[in-house]
Amino acid sequence: MNVIKFGGSSLASGSQLKKVVQIVKDDAARKIVVVSAPGKRSAEDEKVTDLLIGFGMKALAGHDYSSVLSKIVNRYQTIAEELSLGTEIIGEIRQNLDDLINGNKDEPDYYLDAFKASGENNNAKLVAAYFNKEGVPARYMNPKEAGLLVTNEPGNAQVLSESYEELAKMRDSEEVIVFPGFFGYTRDGKVCTFSRGGSDITGSILANGIHAELYENFTDVDAIFTANPNVVENPIGIKELTYREMRELSYGGFSVLHDEALQPAFKLGIPVQIKNTNNPSAPGTRIMKERQLSDQGVIGIASSSGFSSIYIDKYLMNREIGFGRKVLEILESRGISYEHMPSGIDNLTIILHSDQMSSEEEQSLLVQLEEELGADSVKVEHDIALIMIVGEGMRERMFTMSKAATAFSENNINIDMINQGASEVSVMFGIQAKHEDLAVKALYEAFFEKK
Amino acid sequence: MNVIKFGGSSLASGSQLKKVVQIVKDDAARKIVVVSAPGKRSAEDEKVTDLLIGFGMKALAGHDYSSVLSKIVNRYQTIAEELSLGTEIIGEIRQNLDDLINGNKDEPDYYLDAFKASGENNNAKLVAAYFNKEGVPARYMNPKEAGLLVTNEPGNAQVLSESYEELAKMRDSEEVIVFPGFFGYTRDGKVCTFSRGGSDITGSILANGIHAELYENFTDVDAIFTANPNVVENPIGIKELTYREMRELSYGGFSVLHDEALQPAFKLGIPVQIKNTNNPSAPGTRIMKERQLSDQGVIGIASSSGFSSIYIDKYLMNREIGFGRKVLEILESRGISYEHMPSGIDNLTIILHSDQMSSEEEQSLLVQLEEELGADSVKVEHDIALIMIVGEGMRERMFTMSKAATAFSENNINIDMINQGASEVSVMFGIQAKHEDLAVKALYEAFFEKK
Repeated sequence: MNVIKFGGSSLASGSQLKKVVQIVKDDAARKIVVVSAPGKRSAEDEKVTDLLIGFGMKALAGHDYSSVLSKIVNRYQTIAEELSLGTEIIGEIRQNLDDLINGNKDEPDYYLDAFKASGENNNAKLVAAYFNKEGVPARYMNPKEAGLLVTNEPGNAQVLSESYEELAKMRDSEEVIVFPGFFGYTRDGKVCTFSRGGSDITGSILANGIHAELYENFTDVDAIFTANPNVVENPIGIKELTYREMRELSYGGFSVLHDEALQPAFKLGIPVQIKNTNNPSAPGTRIMKERQLSDQGVIGIASSSGFSSIYIDKYLMNREIGFGRKVLEILESRGISYEHMPSGIDNLTIILHSDQMSSEEEQSLLVQLEEELGADSVKVEHDIALIMIVGEGMRERMFTMSKAATAFSENNINIDMINQGASEVSVMFGIQAKHEDLAVKALYEAFFEKK
Repeated sequence: MNVIKFGGSSLASGSQLKKVVQIVKDDAARKIVVVSAPGKRSAEDEKVTDLLIGFGMKALAGHDYSSVLSKIVNRYQTIAEELSLGTEIIGEIRQNLDDLINGNKDEPDYYLDAFKASGENNNAKLVAAYFNKEGVPARYMNPKEAGLLVTNEPGNAQVLSESYEELAKMRDSEEVIVFPGFFGYTRDGKVCTFSRGGSDITGSILANGIHAELYENFTDVDAIFTANPNVVENPIGIKELTYREMRELSYGGFSVLHDEALQPAFKLGIPVQIKNTNNPSAPGTRIMKERQLSDQGVIGIASSSGFSSIYIDKYLMNREIGFGRKVLEILESRGISYEHMPSGIDNLTIILHSDQMSSEEEQSLLVQLEEELGADSVKVEHDIALIMIVGEGMRERMFTMSKAATAFSENNINIDMINQGASEVSVMFGIQAKHEDLAVKALYEAFFEKK
């Protein structure tokens, strides 16, 4: 039995839903269908979830929401009309949206969460109706009915472990279950949404709950690529990927799926298959616990920018027990997290996300570091990009670093930092952000094009 | 005016002292001569300082010391006879050694320090006598008379800053001053020795005190070499080296000079010239504040072994603010210092000197780390060597890493760790200790032999 999840672009229009029903029909194992809210039909389009947030904010503030409410109803109506679904379902959705307005405004976070969650919830009802019309016996399943309980953290809910036993009962369903993604219910009966990863999290939780054989995640790309397709032209798709590799690539800047969303599935060793709704015959990418290692040590190249480095210099630093600890305490007292901290004899560099501090806060941090540590100098650099090469067994391959370093030098890219030695499946390079794309291209060429 | 220091092997015999007096005669600027105790004449020989420690220990314990005392007197006597110095100086030295026995045994550290210091002290008297005989007007200067005051830390004394003004007066001397290295006097008049670096420290302090134009350090090698001559056959000598490069090489395992010993000279920007007593016409190595950069980014390759790595793995580690700080607190509470701490998303590696812990202590540390950090796993690896390539401006040279990584891979040496990004003048590689020599050879070939 598979859990199969469709993203917003797969459900954005009637023509997309026709593909979806066909995909579900194609494999009898596809019994639990998790749906997102309708997404964008084109680059200029609006996501229903964004419209719902606008609707909720206006309702909360007591402003006129009629035009945005119409837009939302229209989106569902357009889909229903394309699919000749009749008016009943739209009446039901309209009623639900009207009811939201009467929520408890004393708890604005929960009030808004109910609006956000309705996008998935109403879409699940619509999809179930369409499946039945197309001869696929299906029923909409409300997360409350299914027993999907979450913590009281609006916008960042965590599943409660007692949910899994309840969710397992869905295995017994004769009909295909259409389940709204993105939210669950608190113990006291309130709607509460998940964080980023939204519906992916729901799919992953259900896969764990029903001990699925496979969690299929349908989106709008043929595969997870070896490099960002906006940077490298027609990069190779990745056929198989381990959980660890997925996690490193995701950290490194890959955005197809957020790996933490997949944890409930990973925990039971359930494979996750990425597929394209618009090209379901493409093999896609399978993310699994272990994979057959190929000759190619590197499986993907990721990059992300927006980092700063703080360089601290103090003579005899490495003799001073507690120096590194003091640095980290100062960061911690300011709620600042760091990514890496390479250290030399008399110096130490902290790499961190730039967006954690305003320039005033940064200035004050530099002064504090210099004064409290008695540093000889403290310098900051901005606009640093981290480039990551990822692959199981890569460390065993002597030539990986040689290839990578040569790719950098041949393209006149200076490496400001190298972090190798912590992770077994990745190496990270710090470079000037202006070279980010060039670096990714150069590494792609070195690892995937050169013979 | 130069300070010129001669090491133990330069003063081990009469024939060596003949070279020394010639060197002093060769340049009128050589006015302050710092001497060590007589060193080894051959590999099997004993250093006078080691004999003195044995002598002191026996005297302290009330054991029979007559044979070791004879050995010590004999060493001086042999030198005096070779130089036809007459018996007066030996009588003086013998008297001094006899007097040591009557020191205050209630303070054993100070008691022993007086024995250790006498090696340099008596040798300075002998050298001064010889200089005068050879027509070089010279006088022995006692550190107390010169005003070299130090902290009350036997075996690890630090110079007191008030000394420098007193020492400056030596500039006015008409005669060459022969100054014993290795010790000073506490404010309460006790002899107290320096730590490692011994006489190098004295020379450096005097260079600072008299604002020397140059601090010449005469030893038994032609130069500081680009790599360890025990590993690489006939390595190239380094002509010029910056203070920073010297420090990194010294940390990396170069043992010609301990860079911290040179700090008092470095502080005033005084250049330090390494020369060979046995080959004074060789240009040697000049250590200076800044140097003309050559095309060659790398100036030296150092290595040292005896390191361990502790690998800590915990899912979502990089989200946990304070994780690194907790790790460092645990180390600190055990008085353990670390060298490097590369970190990944879910993992962190600590590189440290293995000799800081017994295997029981190590086991207990691993358990503490796992339990207190809630780590998923904690693993330790021993027998790690750190290989360092050093050079000013190296980081600006794209090809450095490429060359180095290629040298490793061509020799089938796996790189377990790379630390680049903290120091501006070095990159460090962690490898298995069994590959240490091969790695140094491979890097030497890559940076100094290949065209």
